Amino acid sequence: MTADRNAGKSMDSVFPHLITQKDLPVLVSTSDADFSDVDAVFCCLPHGTTQEIIKGLPKGLKIVDLSADFRLRNVSEYEEWYGQPHRAPDLQEEAVYGLTEILREEIKNAHLVANPGCYPTSIQLPLVPLIKANLIEHKNIIVDAKSGVSGAGRGAKVANLYTELTEGIMSYGVTRHRHVPEIEQGLSDAAHSKVTISFTPHLMPMTRGMQSTIYVEMASGVTTDNLYQQLKVSYQDEEFVRLLEKGAVPRTHDVRGSNYCYINVFPDRIPGRAIIISVIDNLVKGASGQALQNLNLMMGFPENTGLGYLPLFP
Amino acid sequence: MTADRNAGKSMDSVFPHLITQKDLPVLVSTSDADFSDVDAVFCCLPHGTTQEIIKGLPKGLKIVDLSADFRLRNVSEYEEWYGQPHRAPDLQEEAVYGLTEILREEIKNAHLVANPGCYPTSIQLPLVPLIKANLIEHKNIIVDAKSGVSGAGRGAKVANLYTELTEGIMSYGVTRHRHVPEIEQGLSDAAHSKVTISFTPHLMPMTRGMQSTIYVEMASGVTTDNLYQQLKVSYQDEEFVRLLEKGAVPRTHDVRGSNYCYINVFPDRIPGRAIIISVIDNLVKGASGQALQNLNLMMGFPENTGLGYLPLFP
Amino acid sequence: MTADRNAGKSMDSVFPHLITQKDLPVLVSTSDADFSDVDAVFCCLPHGTTQEIIKGLPKGLKIVDLSADFRLRNVSEYEEWYGQPHRAPDLQEEAVYGLTEILREEIKNAHLVANPGCYPTSIQLPLVPLIKANLIEHKNIIVDAKSGVSGAGRGAKVANLYTELTEGIMSYGVTRHRHVPEIEQGLSDAAHSKVTISFTPHLMPMTRGMQSTIYVEMASGVTTDNLYQQLKVSYQDEEFVRLLEKGAVPRTHDVRGSNYCYINVFPDRIPGRAIIISVIDNLVKGASGQALQNLNLMMGFPENTGLGYLPLFP
Amino acid sequence: MTADRNAGKSMDSVFPHLITQKDLPVLVSTSDADFSDVDAVFCCLPHGTTQEIIKGLPKGLKIVDLSADFRLRNVSEYEEWYGQPHRAPDLQEEAVYGLTEILREEIKNAHLVANPGCYPTSIQLPLVPLIKANLIEHKNIIVDAKSGVSGAGRGAKVANLYTELTEGIMSYGVTRHRHVPEIEQGLSDAAHSKVTISFTPHLMPMTRGMQSTIYVEMASGVTTDNLYQQLKVSYQDEEFVRLLEKGAVPRTHDVRGSNYCYINVFPDRIPGRAIIISVIDNLVKGASGQALQNLNLMMGFPENTGLGYLPLFP
Repeated sequence: MTADRNAGKSMDSVFPHLITQKDLPVLVSTSDADFSDVDAVFCCLPHGTTQEIIKGLPKGLKIVDLSADFRLRNVSEYEEWYGQPHRAPDLQEEAVYGLTEILREEIKNAHLVANPGCYPTSIQLPLVPLIKANLIEHKNIIVDAKSGVSGAGRGAKVANLYTELTEGIMSYGVTRHRHVPEIEQGLSDAAHSKVTISFTPHLMPMTRGMQSTIYVEMASGVTTDNLYQQLKVSYQDEEFVRLLEKGAVPRTHDVRGSNYCYINVFPDRIPGRAIIISVIDNLVKGASGQALQNLNLMMGFPENTGLGYLPLFP
Repeated sequence: MTADRNAGKSMDSVFPHLITQKDLPVLVSTSDADFSDVDAVFCCLPHGTTQEIIKGLPKGLKIVDLSADFRLRNVSEYEEWYGQPHRAPDLQEEAVYGLTEILREEIKNAHLVANPGCYPTSIQLPLVPLIKANLIEHKNIIVDAKSGVSGAGRGAKVANLYTELTEGIMSYGVTRHRHVPEIEQGLSDAAHSKVTISFTPHLMPMTRGMQSTIYVEMASGVTTDNLYQQLKVSYQDEEFVRLLEKGAVPRTHDVRGSNYCYINVFPDRIPGRAIIISVIDNLVKGASGQALQNLNLMMGFPENTGLGYLPLFP
Repeated sequence: MTADRNAGKSMDSVFPHLITQKDLPVLVSTSDADFSDVDAVFCCLPHGTTQEIIKGLPKGLKIVDLSADFRLRNVSEYEEWYGQPHRAPDLQEEAVYGLTEILREEIKNAHLVANPGCYPTSIQLPLVPLIKANLIEHKNIIVDAKSGVSGAGRGAKVANLYTELTEGIMSYGVTRHRHVPEIEQGLSDAAHSKVTISFTPHLMPMTRGMQSTIYVEMASGVTTDNLYQQLKVSYQDEEFVRLLEKGAVPRTHDVRGSNYCYINVFPDRIPGRAIIISVIDNLVKGASGQALQNLNLMMGFPENTGLGYLPLFP
Repeated sequence: MTADRNAGKSMDSVFPHLITQKDLPVLVSTSDADFSDVDAVFCCLPHGTTQEIIKGLPKGLKIVDLSADFRLRNVSEYEEWYGQPHRAPDLQEEAVYGLTEILREEIKNAHLVANPGCYPTSIQLPLVPLIKANLIEHKNIIVDAKSGVSGAGRGAKVANLYTELTEGIMSYGVTRHRHVPEIEQGLSDAAHSKVTISFTPHLMPMTRGMQSTIYVEMASGVTTDNLYQQLKVSYQDEEFVRLLEKGAVPRTHDVRGSNYCYINVFPDRIPGRAIIISVIDNLVKGASGQALQNLNLMMGFPENTGLGYLPLFP
């Protein structure tokens, strides 16, 4: 287990809720880590620093990278959205995008998995099967997304203080959030043509949880029942992606602390349109949970190993 | 001051935050109220009970009704959405819809004002001027609205418990919230034709505050600058409706406890579309504040009398 | 699995966070339950109704009762605090108080365990060993306790609404909370004489978590180091009760969702006094977690079976 | 209006909830401020920097200082608790401690008022009259205080992030919070002898509000009724300090956003002891509200000028 500022500390001094895990090793700096006995790594560094670090790791390690550094196949798109050149374009070509339920076979054989962002996970899981089946129009896909504040990380910023966030909501990154190219990449792949979406994230006064409320125009002659049936077929054998009973509203409360994604489809008042709601815990299915799910696949472990946590309610 | 279950009690025993207002009269039941010295009333009863009560009030009283009972001009539409016949259709014809900035002159001369709902206020204030100016298409208006939980009232329901609501969000009334006909009535009036909207309300873990994120298609050749300029012209002399500087994101935090509505317009990634954000305190501009603003007009008082409270932040 | 109002429903319709647990049986009313294959039951009914129900259960069942109905050995004390006569005084004599770490051997052999209340658990765990070792005075024990609102249950009451509780705190049951006799019973047992405490619970704007801040006078010549050493000895082999490093402050965040109790001791500014802080998750170690821990003992299972959940942070 | 990092900005760019106050001057740095037309200043700087700044201000200005820099009469005590020498001991001698209701006459004639801390305000208001009247013992005064997180200011620290604070509570500064000497100074003055208290502050998951739960031993023969009567007499003519009806529990909700302090007294289970509860909004009566109240006195304005805000509930 490695750290930067916290190297030399015990895990429980950084996270007191792990005080009972006394057998955890002391944190070491990445440069001091001994990889000789290591089979796989999770890399959880800020974007921009990750490419160099991963380039320097021993060959043969299996890597799940939770940063954005290997998510965009097109390195010039990376440069455009992240404001810096890609430093490991060769590795980028080997990287597999880790949206587990959509790209499971590719992930099994990958050495480097780019773990998806939280918004992209919650949006692509319902939309990719519907686009592949030609059930929705590619234009005018409108995503109004709501996230708990843990998505902003643990950095000390005034904007993330309790007093700035509790008891209020706000949009942010209107029209230009960095998850946009990642989402459009996945949807465009499914559509075999360029998809441009409307995407507006909102910050909620809660720690965990993410909901994407997605407004779509259905293809000619298609009904919400058709959408429902397609999602049912696509996800009926999946443990972690669940289509609810018709009419039931997915709630972030009901997936908190777990790796589940709950989805449902609703008719819109405007004829020909539908509303899709998907919820996840942004820190689990939207980050560490999906990362573990991916590593399980890469290592040949049962896919749900270590993911048995039920949602914590209330 | 009247009450039902709480008749006979002092105001501060029901609301201890008013304990310092010792000159408030004891609560009496409506039937025991002496209207002889009363010029005007605020009526804050559940929908369905209000029509009978107001029918029975002395003639000549000025009335601001905060329920939904007189908001819909079409009494058969009332029956459809509220599940009961309208009991005062004659009064309905006299009622003026109290969206202050839009219908100020009518309100000045009204005897009965139907105070708007919170969602309808936050949605109509930005959209009515844009529709009237033919700047946006009438179809495909998509409203993703977020409300604090005080909108649900003070009734004892499991769904409104702290433990059910904190640290989570959820959509509700998907496609069939009772504020829909009221919103469509106002937008249709502005459009001079029937407007059908997509409207999805969401419950936020906060007491006060409401944001409507509105996704619109602009009329051919229109730009977001045109929308901005129109709103600037429409609201430049208004005290309570404020168009923010370009790029500034309206936040519910910044209107909490006040009668202000903050609005702004943003370009969308999808060409030809725009995103409009408006925020209010649902209990003030969305309820009691606008009610007072309306009564001030009806009585010939300065419109901002009693509305000088600045937002409470943090 | 039994229910009253919810009999006939599936578990996931009552608790949507359990929707993935499709093999759970449909809820049946208690009177329809088939106990022929049942070895043990958890009884989670309101106090007052529990005594009759348990009297009617088949002999031989192992029972952990989470209500207050069998916690007080003295049935007249039960009557005094709960306002009704005890309906199963014979069973009361067999009941063992389920404070696991203190009464482990008795619990192993019990047929009926009265699971402790949340406040009593958080208070007795640190105090009982210190009283037994004669390290603190029995008089002037002052407990200022803080609880998340889930302790109030899921009943629909105005006082428990989100809007009444968020962003504010309040004391309740000052001087006369029903957990008092249970706490004094346990402390008096440890002291071999009647102990009367000062106990003031406070309601916090959070769902889970409980902290007891306990102000004690040390016995003559005793230091806070002596208290610390005693707790270290008492709990060094315990999995779920943890004495923190000296100076570290127990935080409810760090035990949320887990069965852990964190404790520490601090010197007071007033010479001869000490401050003891203990934290638990009121729904786990303060209720269902300790209940499971007790049943594990009664059934001869490993004591931590089903209790492996780590705290959920953030 | 002056600023440091924010000099040159408009007020509403720093605090968007003030966007409607367009006539506010642009922020200037303190060194650029023109004091020629200024009668009085509020000084809201971090402790340690304030003494130098105030020394440099023009003579004749009336000053209310909200920092801790002039609260402790004994400059060596200041040095002990704040870790640096006092830089304006001459000014210290002129400074008047601004606990309005207790020191009103002194404040009226003061040039420099040291505005009290939030904890000291909530604790001294109930205790000073009781100590002066010899109704409570000076030893074993135990204060368990709970504060909203805005008391920590707007600095960017990990400990103050939303994710670290929501849905959990914690003690901090156990036995050594910097408000201790200020509280003990005030109580010792009232007692005419050195008073040492037990003081444990706790951080609550809420922005505003502070409760002090105070556990006291009554003097021989004194009852809680005697305490109640004394407080009634002391505060019967005060606008901002309110003794509630017997039995009513002061709640932080009921003073939020206002300058009120609510107090009540309760009997303890331990004979001879009493529990006193006082609540304030830490940002108003605990900071800016009391500062304004003091300046009103110093300027000869009505004491409640600008303080008419009622509590905001819910």
